[in-house]
Formats: sequence, C-alpha cells, structure tokens
Amino acid sequence: MTVAVPAATLPKTRKLSISAAERADRVARVREELEGRGLDGLVLFHPERIGYLTSFVFVSTERPMALVVPLRGELGMLVPQLEQEHVARAPEIGNVMVYPEYPAGPGGRHPMQYLRELLDRTGLLGRRLGCDSDGYGDVAGYVGPTLSAINSDGSVASARDVVDTLRQVKSAAELDLIRESCTWGNLAHRLLQKHMAIGKTEIAVSLAATSEAILIMLDTLGSAYASPGRGFRNPPVSASFIAGANTALPHGMRREQGLRPGDAIITGASADIGGYHSELERTMIVGEPGPEFVRYFEAMLAIQAASFAALRPGRTCADVEAEVQSEIAHLGLSALTRHHTGHGMGLEGHEPPFLDLGDDTLIQPGMVFSLEPGLYVPGVAGFRHSDTAIITPDGIELATYYPRDLPSLIV
Amino acid sequence: MTVAVPAATLPKTRKLSISAAERADRVARVREELEGRGLDGLVLFHPERIGYLTSFVFVSTERPMALVVPLRGELGMLVPQLEQEHVARAPEIGNVMVYPEYPAGPGGRHPMQYLRELLDRTGLLGRRLGCDSDGYGDVAGYVGPTLSAINSDGSVASARDVVDTLRQVKSAAELDLIRESCTWGNLAHRLLQKHMAIGKTEIAVSLAATSEAILIMLDTLGSAYASPGRGFRNPPVSASFIAGANTALPHGMRREQGLRPGDAIITGASADIGGYHSELERTMIVGEPGPEFVRYFEAMLAIQAASFAALRPGRTCADVEAEVQSEIAHLGLSALTRHHTGHGMGLEGHEPPFLDLGDDTLIQPGMVFSLEPGLYVPGVAGFRHSDTAIITPDGIELATYYPRDLPSLIV
Repeated sequence: MTVAVPAATLPKTRKLSISAAERADRVARVREELEGRGLDGLVLFHPERIGYLTSFVFVSTERPMALVVPLRGELGMLVPQLEQEHVARAPEIGNVMVYPEYPAGPGGRHPMQYLRELLDRTGLLGRRLGCDSDGYGDVAGYVGPTLSAINSDGSVASARDVVDTLRQVKSAAELDLIRESCTWGNLAHRLLQKHMAIGKTEIAVSLAATSEAILIMLDTLGSAYASPGRGFRNPPVSASFIAGANTALPHGMRREQGLRPGDAIITGASADIGGYHSELERTMIVGEPGPEFVRYFEAMLAIQAASFAALRPGRTCADVEAEVQSEIAHLGLSALTRHHTGHGMGLEGHEPPFLDLGDDTLIQPGMVFSLEPGLYVPGVAGFRHSDTAIITPDGIELATYYPRDLPSLIV
Repeated sequence: MTVAVPAATLPKTRKLSISAAERADRVARVREELEGRGLDGLVLFHPERIGYLTSFVFVSTERPMALVVPLRGELGMLVPQLEQEHVARAPEIGNVMVYPEYPAGPGGRHPMQYLRELLDRTGLLGRRLGCDSDGYGDVAGYVGPTLSAINSDGSVASARDVVDTLRQVKSAAELDLIRESCTWGNLAHRLLQKHMAIGKTEIAVSLAATSEAILIMLDTLGSAYASPGRGFRNPPVSASFIAGANTALPHGMRREQGLRPGDAIITGASADIGGYHSELERTMIVGEPGPEFVRYFEAMLAIQAASFAALRPGRTCADVEAEVQSEIAHLGLSALTRHHTGHGMGLEGHEPPFLDLGDDTLIQPGMVFSLEPGLYVPGVAGFRHSDTAIITPDGIELATYYPRDLPSLIV
C-alpha cells in the first residue's frame, strides 16, 4: 500500500536560519530610523547588510548589486542577469532590476544607470538617500560612478550605521545560531587536536580536521542546516592553526614543515550556521612546556580572566579595554601586546563594536564579543586564547567551552 | 665526519614567486606613469595592488593599511601594530608607520591621522596624490575619513588604473606561475572526477579532492612553493562543483544531497601559485546523457570554440564578445546566455579587462582571459566550460588542458 503524506500537512522542523518574520521586522526598524533621520530611502551595497535585511545571500564580484529600501513599498534590488534566477528565490524582494552585464550590456549602459532607473521606479530618484557607501566598492577591478552622481538632483548621506547598529545587538534567534556555531567549532577544534602529531604539517592536520568536522556536522544537522553557498569561500566549518615562532605574529603565516617538539601552536575554529559565526582560538604546545612558556601562558590566562570579569552591560567598550590594559600593565607586560581585547561578531567574523580605547559604544545584553587579549614574545611565541562571549543582563555567558588550561592543550 | 655547507655557497633553487627585481621594475613603471600625470605620489589601499608592488601580502580587515609610493625615495606603509613584525619582512618598504589599533590607540588618534603623518614624513602632504580609493574601504565595519579630508591642503585624484593597467599584461614570470596554477588545477579536477560517484555529496567529493591535491602539490613543489598565507582564505588548491538543476544558475549553490543519475555537474578547480590563479571549469553528467543534454553540450562546445578563434591581439575585448554573441545568435540560443565570454585573471580570480561589449581594451600578448561562454537552461541545467587562455603574438595558448569532450566527462 502506498500512502502519500502531503508535505504541507507535516509539522515544521528545525531550521538553523533567521525567519522571514524576523527579517521583515529588521526592515521595519530600518525604515523607522530612516524616517527619524529625514531620509526617503536607503541604498546598500555590502553583501552582509543586504543579507541582514533579505534572504538573498551572494558574494560580491565586479558585477555590482544593491538593495534599495524605500520608506514604504517594495524592496528593490539591482542584480546582473547572472543572478536573476537566484534573486527570484527571495520573495521579499518585490522590485528586481536586472542589468545585462558589467562593464555594460548591448545597450552600453553602465549598471549604475540601471540603479538610477530602479530608484526612479521606486520614487526615490532626486530624493534624500542614505547609503552604506557612495557607490559600489573596489572589487575585482570594478569602476563606476558614485551614487551621488546617479542621484545628482537629490542628496546622499552616509547611513552605514543604520543597519550596523541594529546588527550589534543580537536577537534570541541570532544567539542560538552563534551558540550552534560554537558547538561545531568545538568539534572541529577537538579533531584538530586529535590529528596533531610530531612531523605532521599544519595544513595536513587542518584539512583533515576541517573535512571531518564538515561532514559530521552536515550529517548531524541534516535538513536543519541552511547551506551558506558554494565552494570554499564560506566553508561550513573551518579549523586551522599556525605553529612555531610564527605564532609571535598575531596574523602569522602557515609553515610548510611538520610539527616539532617545543612548537607553540595557535589555533582557530569556527562554523557558519545560517550565516553566523563564532570564534574559538587556543594556545597549545607540542610536548612538555618549558618554564618561560608556562609563565607567559599563565599570564595570558590571567589577562583573559580579567577580560571575562570586565565585560558587562552598562559599561563602554573603552572601559573594558582600559581595565584589561591596566591588568596587563600591572603584570608588566604591556610591551608584548599587539591589539585590543576583542571585537563584535555575527554575520561577519569581525564587526563593530570593538573592545578598544577608541570605541565608546555602551555594552548591552545580546551583544557578542571575542575575548582574546594576546601576548606576543618576538622570536619565542604568541599566547592567545579567544572565546566568544554573549552579553547577559548582568555579565557574560561564554558560548565557547573548549578547555583553557595548559595540561589540556599539550600535544 | 661532519661537514657543514654554508647556505650562501649553494646555488639558488627554483622559487615559484615574483622576484624582488621584477617588483622594483613595477614600482619604477608606476612612478613613470605618475610623473606623466603630474602626480607627486600614489596611495593604495587594496591588498592585491599593494601585493603587486611589494612582498607584503595581507588580508584586509577593519584595521586599515595603505602603501604610499612617492615619486622618489622610500616606499611607505601604514600598518596596525598587529602587523609590525610581518611588514618588517618586506625589505623594500623603508618607511613604516605603525598605529596602535583601530578604532584608536591610547592617544585617541584615528589610523588615518597616522597616514597623514606618513604622508608628511614622505613630503607628500598637501601635494597632488593619486589613489585607488578615496579612503579605506567598507571592510568589517571600518569607518574613517577620506584621503581627500586627510590631504585637504593638496589634491586627490583617482589613479586606480595606474597599477591595474600594468597588471593586465603579464610578464614571462607571471605567465609561468599561471601555467603552474593550471597544472595543479588539472590534478585537482582529475581527483574531483575520480571521487564523484552516485550518492556522494558535492561537498564530500570536493573536500576529498581538494585535500589530496593540496598535499600532493605541496609535497611535489616543496620549498619552491611560496605559501600564500594562513587558514582557508587562500587555499593552495581549490576544487568544487555544483550538481543538478542548480547548475542552471551561473553562480549556483551547493546541494546537501548525493549525486543522482542524470545530474548535470559544473566544476571549478584552481591553484594559488605565488599569488596567481587560473580557471578550469567543466560541464559533466552522471550516467548516459539524454539527447537534450547532448544538444546543449555540443552547442556550448561550438560557442567556446568560437571564442578560441575570436581571441587574438589587435582586436578589442568588445570585438571578441560581439563575435561570440553573433555565433550564439546564429545558433538561436541568445536567450540562454547570462554573462559575457570571460574576464582577465592574475592576482585575482576576476580582474579587468573583461570580454564584454562595454570593454574597448585592446588585446595584447601577455594578457590572460577565461573563456567560458555559458548556456543556462532554466529547470534543466547549465552548460559551461571555462579555460584559461594566454594571448600570444598571433592568437592564444590554452594553458588549461583538461579534456573538453563529453565522453571524457561522464561520471
């Protein structure tokens, strides 16, 4: 007997992505802010900002794309013909303007002229526009006019912060995606550690751990996982490390030789869940650590603990950084720092606000930061753990939970 | 008996990278062009342009970096403290300005104020500057003043093309790196094809082929290979594919299900050799193709053959595109195209010039293009091979050599 169950009658299952209703709410809040600023509409070129407001996820190339958010009416989108079937899958974008190609199609019109037509069609041409950049960026050789030139009868004001400020405080759904990212980053890091051995190269270990973690995660999450895309530009999971004296460079380069006894290691592991990221980094060592290594490692742990204690709502980012720097100065190690304590994250691995003396942003529940004060001892090694912290009403929740103590991190 | 051979007495071995002498020559040519335009110096923010003129290879983040090229005297570079040991490895950069951090260090000065100081130190403040962008780009939430604001007593002109025009015509050394990239892209593609099987997912096959190709390439090239960096942002080799109806989207997304009989496949494989890239893409099918698939596949081959015949020195990019489009129109398939015939490549996977009706660039020996006219049949499949062509004095050399015929591309 064959019984067909119509899909529409089945209960909904878990989906690790942001709902259409939440995205619609984001658009509503953007419009409210635009209205408050006396702007008639917003033009966005950056893919992460467009992905925050719509379900259209793409990679920027030389072919410009732009989202147009009028105060009222349908969202508009400029796309090359190449993307016309892709954008059609985003039902909340009602007004699609397709241009043939960049630099220009048969008519010879530049893509920005099509954006002009889209602005005209949405009643925004010659009006007061906000934008994230005054024209499309410097991507793969793209050249074109500014938005100001296109909208020369109106005005163009920088309004990048309209979306970026919203993005700083995460919703419950966003925090769930970031926690899920931590889970799979943890697995990837465990596999990384399992594969580390004397003689093995950084890249061989990283490739093995990444491949295993990706396949296990996709098998585990199944249809709940919303694929971030194509190729390796956005791998579902990434895990890698650098070893030896290169760790003394905060953004050190891979070596092409195998692990050796005494090598310091700095790792990194994350997963892309519905477009959201987390950060997990650990300082490790191959074999028994010497006294110098232990001393700096313990100092790094103490400084990171100070950052855990310093981060809470009601203070500014600068307050937190000042407190961490004062702990570092107290230990007499200020000369060994190379960067601030941490950065926001979400749709991007690094995003505002920054735990920096120059950032006066007020810390609020729902913000997410990396906590990664580092010590870099030239010629010796770098010392940096990074954890992902979610701001709670009275402090932080550490979303990453990989062991931090030295005995757990010896290969 | 122990005999130590001093390294300096050994003959030089092969190194797959651009020599310091060639980079110095590029700087000299940039200066000549600046002088011709009446500019006193050039400020570059884009990492690929900076990497073209120096040995300093980095990834752009929210921390701005900039290269300053004065007409005479030492090259200057703005870097965050985080990169100070890294930039010290680039001996041709004589004038390094380090800022503490972004958004700001203890003094509260924005990084662009340090760029102002660097311009002052190099005698360029208040003079006539060229630039690739009027300030640092929209990266990871960066916000800051324009270069025009920093240099308000002088002038700032767009001069992005000074470097980009040089980059369009490759030297013998650059072409060797691109040919080497094709070699390893070929291996990665062969491994991709070997791993394809019914039931296997796109990502599982892609991960296996990529990992194997990377490890084999690094073992084969050994110390000749100059590592492009860290993590997976620039994998040494990449190979992936999409399958099924998604191939009808030129930039289609991965499916999370296994290969099925009848699936169309579009692949892509490349390697990063000394920072240079190539492009190899093939249309494939799982099992025996039906007559409709064969018909479109043969048409795609005919159109690509027309592009091979159309590309030669002395014509413009637009001429080539017009000839290919006329072949497509002759076959009655114009409605199935979604993009132009190809793009330049080198340090970036896509770079100018473009084989496009809107690009009047004269084709010259040493230029490198992808040739990838595609047909996209909605709901059925996409049909696109991409090959890397080097312009010779009287036509093209195909640097990619993976089989193009259908029998060779059946899984």
